[in-house]
Amino acid sequence: MHPQTRYCNVCGHPVEFRVPADDHLPRHVCTRCGHVQYRNPKVIVGVIAEWRDGRVLMCRRNIEPRRGLWTFPAGFMEMGETSAAGAAREAREESLAEVDVGPLLMVMNVPYVSQVYMVHCGRLLSERFGPTAESSEVVLMHEHEIPWDHIAFPTIWHSLRQYFEDRRNGRFGTHLLDLTFKPPAPQRPEVPGDDPSA
Amino acid sequence: MHPQTRYCNVCGHPVEFRVPADDHLPRHVCTRCGHVQYRNPKVIVGVIAEWRDGRVLMCRRNIEPRRGLWTFPAGFMEMGETSAAGAAREAREESLAEVDVGPLLMVMNVPYVSQVYMVHCGRLLSERFGPTAESSEVVLMHEHEIPWDHIAFPTIWHSLRQYFEDRRNGRFGTHLLDLTFKPPAPQRPEVPGDDPSA
Repeated sequence: MHPQTRYCNVCGHPVEFRVPADDHLPRHVCTRCGHVQYRNPKVIVGVIAEWRDGRVLMCRRNIEPRRGLWTFPAGFMEMGETSAAGAAREAREESLAEVDVGPLLMVMNVPYVSQVYMVHCGRLLSERFGPTAESSEVVLMHEHEIPWDHIAFPTIWHSLRQYFEDRRNGRFGTHLLDLTFKPPAPQRPEVPGDDPSA
Repeated sequence: MHPQTRYCNVCGHPVEFRVPADDHLPRHVCTRCGHVQYRNPKVIVGVIAEWRDGRVLMCRRNIEPRRGLWTFPAGFMEMGETSAAGAAREAREESLAEVDVGPLLMVMNVPYVSQVYMVHCGRLLSERFGPTAESSEVVLMHEHEIPWDHIAFPTIWHSLRQYFEDRRNGRFGTHLLDLTFKPPAPQRPEVPGDDPSA
């Protein structure tokens, strides 16, 4: 049961949490009109965008969760888009970068947060990029410059590892990874302007 | 705007369709509590399950949409599961089959219905399977027995084609496919018990 799902989207009357007829799991069902409100896993799309010199585009998160930690552009897939289109859109929103999104590198199941990640490889099309409301810093990094201890999410960490490994081997493939153990959140680095008492 | 989203899940008051602050797309936003109800693409998980003799498990749909047409077990991913666990669950629900779900064969973006398909290969663990409320027939088929003109969805058709092609080549990989053109629905075969006037 989802604590925030209390009323029906369709008619505004209270819902109850029960197994509908012909179903096998409890759902939020309207007590008046019978409408079933399904909840489903969400897809996150992202891209590791490489510049001509081999460096990849990294963003320092300016929003919660994991503010101050590092990621490549990634975010929730929107209705009506492909994973590649979504990844290109996230690159634009988070870093102002134009990215030619290429092959699918990683598919990750993250059941403890009901998410599926789809991470593509891509080519950064110009050096025009920079900070945004979502990213306090946007920089190009060589592999040895990646702040491995300050990566925002395990999915981002694993994708970057796989990317550099595939690049070393000269052979990119699509990899499936199930992250079924929820690790502790990484230590938050000191972020200028953060209120430590917040 | 989604015509069925008219009231807030959290407080039951009417929603309006507008771009929230710090967002870029219109969402359903509560006029009273400000709660934003996001809509996101859904993930469908499935499995092509092979028996020892090379035949694969196929189900004839007993439910809409595409009742009477053929598919392998596939359905909406549930909260908290991996794609493999979801595919095994769908095999059980639709065909009573126990399947050892293996590698990821296909990832398909279907933006015209805001869906992502994740189709695995798998091994059928026993010959115990059969019809269910969801499947009027459940049978093992050789490649030449697949009813290509009576497959329920393009995603299912493409997955089966890829599966047999990879098997012929002796090399399975994970393939990405964007289905961005919505094809017409296949002709519905005559289904016993169907009311043609319905």
